[in-house]
Amino acid sequence: MHNQKRIRDYGVKVGSIEPGSLNAITDVAGVTVGHVTLSDGHMQTGVTAILPHQGDVFHDKLIASSHVINGFGKTMGTIQLAELGTLETPIVLTNTLNVGTAANAVIDYMLEKNSDIGNTTGTVNPIVGECNDMFLNDVRRRFVKEEHVRHALDHTSVEFEEGAVGAGTGMLCYSLKGGIGSASRLVELGHGTYTVGVLVLSNFGMLSDLMVSGNPIGKVLKKHIQQSHKEEDKGSVMVILATDLPLSERQLHRILKRAVTGLSRTGSIITNGSGEIVLGFTTANKIPHAKPPKCLTIETIHEEDMDEAFRAAGEAVEEAVLNSLITAKSIVGRVGNERPAFKDLLEKLNISLKNP
Amino acid sequence: MHNQKRIRDYGVKVGSIEPGSLNAITDVAGVTVGHVTLSDGHMQTGVTAILPHQGDVFHDKLIASSHVINGFGKTMGTIQLAELGTLETPIVLTNTLNVGTAANAVIDYMLEKNSDIGNTTGTVNPIVGECNDMFLNDVRRRFVKEEHVRHALDHTSVEFEEGAVGAGTGMLCYSLKGGIGSASRLVELGHGTYTVGVLVLSNFGMLSDLMVSGNPIGKVLKKHIQQSHKEEDKGSVMVILATDLPLSERQLHRILKRAVTGLSRTGSIITNGSGEIVLGFTTANKIPHAKPPKCLTIETIHEEDMDEAFRAAGEAVEEAVLNSLITAKSIVGRVGNERPAFKDLLEKLNISLKNP
Amino acid sequence: MHNQKRIRDYGVKVGSIEPGSLNAITDVAGVTVGHVTLSDGHMQTGVTAILPHQGDVFHDKLIASSHVINGFGKTMGTIQLAELGTLETPIVLTNTLNVGTAANAVIDYMLEKNSDIGNTTGTVNPIVGECNDMFLNDVRRRFVKEEHVRHALDHTSVEFEEGAVGAGTGMLCYSLKGGIGSASRLVELGHGTYTVGVLVLSNFGMLSDLMVSGNPIGKVLKKHIQQSHKEEDKGSVMVILATDLPLSERQLHRILKRAVTGLSRTGSIITNGSGEIVLGFTTANKIPHAKPPKCLTIETIHEEDMDEAFRAAGEAVEEAVLNSLITAKSIVGRVGNERPAFKDLLEKLNISLKNP
Amino acid sequence: MHNQKRIRDYGVKVGSIEPGSLNAITDVAGVTVGHVTLSDGHMQTGVTAILPHQGDVFHDKLIASSHVINGFGKTMGTIQLAELGTLETPIVLTNTLNVGTAANAVIDYMLEKNSDIGNTTGTVNPIVGECNDMFLNDVRRRFVKEEHVRHALDHTSVEFEEGAVGAGTGMLCYSLKGGIGSASRLVELGHGTYTVGVLVLSNFGMLSDLMVSGNPIGKVLKKHIQQSHKEEDKGSVMVILATDLPLSERQLHRILKRAVTGLSRTGSIITNGSGEIVLGFTTANKIPHAKPPKCLTIETIHEEDMDEAFRAAGEAVEEAVLNSLITAKSIVGRVGNERPAFKDLLEKLNISLKNP
Repeated sequence: MHNQKRIRDYGVKVGSIEPGSLNAITDVAGVTVGHVTLSDGHMQTGVTAILPHQGDVFHDKLIASSHVINGFGKTMGTIQLAELGTLETPIVLTNTLNVGTAANAVIDYMLEKNSDIGNTTGTVNPIVGECNDMFLNDVRRRFVKEEHVRHALDHTSVEFEEGAVGAGTGMLCYSLKGGIGSASRLVELGHGTYTVGVLVLSNFGMLSDLMVSGNPIGKVLKKHIQQSHKEEDKGSVMVILATDLPLSERQLHRILKRAVTGLSRTGSIITNGSGEIVLGFTTANKIPHAKPPKCLTIETIHEEDMDEAFRAAGEAVEEAVLNSLITAKSIVGRVGNERPAFKDLLEKLNISLKNP
Repeated sequence: MHNQKRIRDYGVKVGSIEPGSLNAITDVAGVTVGHVTLSDGHMQTGVTAILPHQGDVFHDKLIASSHVINGFGKTMGTIQLAELGTLETPIVLTNTLNVGTAANAVIDYMLEKNSDIGNTTGTVNPIVGECNDMFLNDVRRRFVKEEHVRHALDHTSVEFEEGAVGAGTGMLCYSLKGGIGSASRLVELGHGTYTVGVLVLSNFGMLSDLMVSGNPIGKVLKKHIQQSHKEEDKGSVMVILATDLPLSERQLHRILKRAVTGLSRTGSIITNGSGEIVLGFTTANKIPHAKPPKCLTIETIHEEDMDEAFRAAGEAVEEAVLNSLITAKSIVGRVGNERPAFKDLLEKLNISLKNP
Repeated sequence: MHNQKRIRDYGVKVGSIEPGSLNAITDVAGVTVGHVTLSDGHMQTGVTAILPHQGDVFHDKLIASSHVINGFGKTMGTIQLAELGTLETPIVLTNTLNVGTAANAVIDYMLEKNSDIGNTTGTVNPIVGECNDMFLNDVRRRFVKEEHVRHALDHTSVEFEEGAVGAGTGMLCYSLKGGIGSASRLVELGHGTYTVGVLVLSNFGMLSDLMVSGNPIGKVLKKHIQQSHKEEDKGSVMVILATDLPLSERQLHRILKRAVTGLSRTGSIITNGSGEIVLGFTTANKIPHAKPPKCLTIETIHEEDMDEAFRAAGEAVEEAVLNSLITAKSIVGRVGNERPAFKDLLEKLNISLKNP
Repeated sequence: MHNQKRIRDYGVKVGSIEPGSLNAITDVAGVTVGHVTLSDGHMQTGVTAILPHQGDVFHDKLIASSHVINGFGKTMGTIQLAELGTLETPIVLTNTLNVGTAANAVIDYMLEKNSDIGNTTGTVNPIVGECNDMFLNDVRRRFVKEEHVRHALDHTSVEFEEGAVGAGTGMLCYSLKGGIGSASRLVELGHGTYTVGVLVLSNFGMLSDLMVSGNPIGKVLKKHIQQSHKEEDKGSVMVILATDLPLSERQLHRILKRAVTGLSRTGSIITNGSGEIVLGFTTANKIPHAKPPKCLTIETIHEEDMDEAFRAAGEAVEEAVLNSLITAKSIVGRVGNERPAFKDLLEKLNISLKNP
């Protein structure tokens, strides 16, 4: 997408399942992504918005779920997601201290689109995820304003940039520059071909742990990099998973739990200071806000078909993390802090990632 | 049922919703209950078996869930229930130290009925619940044998006895004799009338806390009873909830969580030493063991219809506990231990329970 | 407190355990409460802030936990609470659509007090709870601003008002005016006397279900009230529990789970559209933000001592709900909506609540 | 141990932390392991028992926790583990359909050692884990008898065999012979050196997914093996983690959640039909069964020290799985089924595993 060179362009094939045409979360029909990037000196932050479908999400809710890999995080909205199993707003990602602002913006966006909210029907549950970008960004300044969030919500598309953009502007991954990455997989079942798409906001890991398809490249790079301070991981990661597989919220939750296999295979040990949260939804069944006269009818796959979805989720997460790394450009931010770009290091050191 | 005088026969009406024709868990079509009672001196224990439907439960599974109110208990099988959302065996209740024996018996029962288990398909997940009847029963002797469990499984019916029978033989409730109780409620929704049925194995509470429809009868009785030892509650309760409401496992789980409102209204504070577990299933959707060529179609109610089910569950649990108390007869058991029967006390003291 | 007539002043004694001197959450040493009330026409809302101790909460964290009774709610901060088991900010309550604003205010308050946050150490996890006050308040207008939250945080005290104040300004309870209520209990253990204090933001229930110590007063009142629209419950309740009992986060969580017994005994069936969330902390052990050279030493009670705490929690919640009802005054709000005050009805109908 | 050639003897070094002297779960002082192996024709099963300490586990309980990676399993005892946070019996592993028998045997073992159980104090909570060995073992026959379990409990030691022994006799892993494996790591903190030990019962995975330290050896082996039937994974894995780190049950639970990183790095995608359960305990704090006059004092590490424990847990699990594979010998079992031994394949194909 966007002419960015992605991990496959370096000869790395992750896993065994075929990706969708964009190899991105937006391969799931209806899903679009928008960024606002705030990059200037000690301001290195932004917003990424994901629309789960192009209609009225409040009145046509989607079955959704979340999974906490590690809970040192401030994601909003998961209590209701667990209770009701439905998503009724876009998902917004930003930095840790701007979650409140993003929530306000999502609320206003929803109020504007739905005059019944807080009037003739109940309220609305905004979903906001975050990572902490304080290494490069002066997070205390809370640079993200409601209008930035609104801009991201209003300017989404099927093709979108990866790397140091949107909410990923100030993020680090494996002590390199990280940020936004995406990937997808096609799940072939007897009754149809479905898509699992993933978008990550990567902000975790230590360089020496980085693996690319089993290749311990992190250890190699570490030898070449002079690091002035002790390597530590105070990071986090948001994983957004979209699919058109017909699933119950329980089944979807099972799939979200497999995200960790992909993270682990890039080298993550899931450190203490890390908010690692997975949010997911399926576009296959719409749940009406208003009670219809009859029962609802939910389509789901049989449990025996889950393995393909599990494998797809793990592979897509692994590749999305690698895409976030390989597309990110280096940024000099707060107090002159900097993290190198993975692609620059590979080029400079003339290292190939190609699978044997 | 069985000509036993139940709480309604004492003029007590619990809640506002109408019960089914038997006012029992077996008002849910297909559900049957069987007891084996072992009552002789220091042996005061038994088995209660619940068949969730009359067909092949392994191949036609039911959507099911469980909820732990307090986890000082040894119920088996809930891990898989949570993961897969399905029940594939009958549910058996017995005393705490016979859970292993009951599991063996359920496994053999299932193996006999299904030659594919452990052969051409996987294994099976027996569901066994328990309470501790050691006050009246010499629980260390593990009196329940596999043949007792099998007998209970093989002799179930729509009408069944309550009180000091089956798994309830040796149980206490509010320092009185407790055991098996049941009740049901009819849930009227726009698209049909559904049934919520409950069976409890009651074994919790202290006399002074007992309330009957807001009437603090426990405090009254306590004044009349000489108790030789400090009143304490090491008890527990199993709640089995059956329904024919079309529900997802998430919705069913929400209903199971309301059982505690009924327990609380009889006076429970949910003590530390108490295994309080709720198991539930719905007969509305059958989930095939073998993968069909197409997706499954699950019928569910809309979330706005849940309140009636919540109220029904709370009321049925409250009434089932009261039925377990009022039907139980006094038993002299281990080392001469004895607990009075609620009905005997009411008669002796000439106390009326009738709602004003 | 504040010369308000509370439920005990009506001759109602809830449970059997003695309350603390104020019979309020602030009986737990160090806890203070502040309100900002915004009451004018269609603006009927506000903020209630609870300081868990008077020192530096970020650097001297408290063991904390949360429990979701029903998750149709938007409370922020519980993911990290569950993962790390510590509270590091005050707790703020407000209306549903102002959670983001309250989070921003808490973040700024913490940044101001702690120059290391987002600079030399990580970020901070604001805890914000909410109920929906849209019946009386034009919630879409988001009247609560950051300065209101800040004012509540800066003006807390040991004595505080109950009823239609602070976050409770626009709330309903059992179809009457609800809001803020509090109560406490003294827990006598072999090694000391401890306090369990509760504050509720009540906003749930239907009149016909209301019970006061077993007295079905709601049914009586309902006969006397003309209600123009169908009684329905779209409410919620926040329960904040403070204690100085030495507890692990697991033990504290067990206590929080008992809040539901108190709610149930006032008549709650825990409806679908209700965010019912319990947040709790203990002041007994302080957890340092910075790693000390040695291990931490945590004092906890033995599990056998939990029953007194369970009973205390249930009783305090029950009494706090009743205090929120009996202290609240009637308010005319949005589009002329109004709910009667419990105390006015009792006076007008000359009904006594006194225990027999 | 036992002169078996382990993965390190093949030149494979997993991770970066040093192992304990035995590189086994028994490096944690007090922990011992015993096996009973039943290997004869279509009977290929057994029992593995783990004693958490050598004293009276019922009266000196250990802080313990469990974590479900995937819940298609029948492990017993986790409800109480979660509620009370303590282990009070040995842990026994066996095949799926013998969980009830193992529970009976553990109960009898505990009753014999503790005459107060079920007499003057409450009952006991046996912990039994399982995997399904039906490919090699005629699991329907339930070959394991109570005396086998008792023998394993009575014959534990610090050194123990790995591979196709005990509960691992009939298990498969990555389509090769699997079974019992163990490993340990030394965690260096400012205030001391601690041990994390792991024992796995491996029974999961498909050959093509197997990775050894990033080396996709499974794909290589697959080319050389003629497989008569479609490769599928109906497996499972039990992970037992012991440590002497001073931890709360919450902290221990966090460590158990990292087991999945080790599994993932050997290639697992955590398939549907797989019971993947982690059980853990720490020997650092003993919790007395009887209530002492004073509060308990629990030592715990600071949260900032968790990362070393997380890394240790992941590495030990990864190495324990590889040890279970490399030590297992080939077995011909039920209906002539057979799975090759990893070590035989490496030798036959002259493949080196050595890290570059």
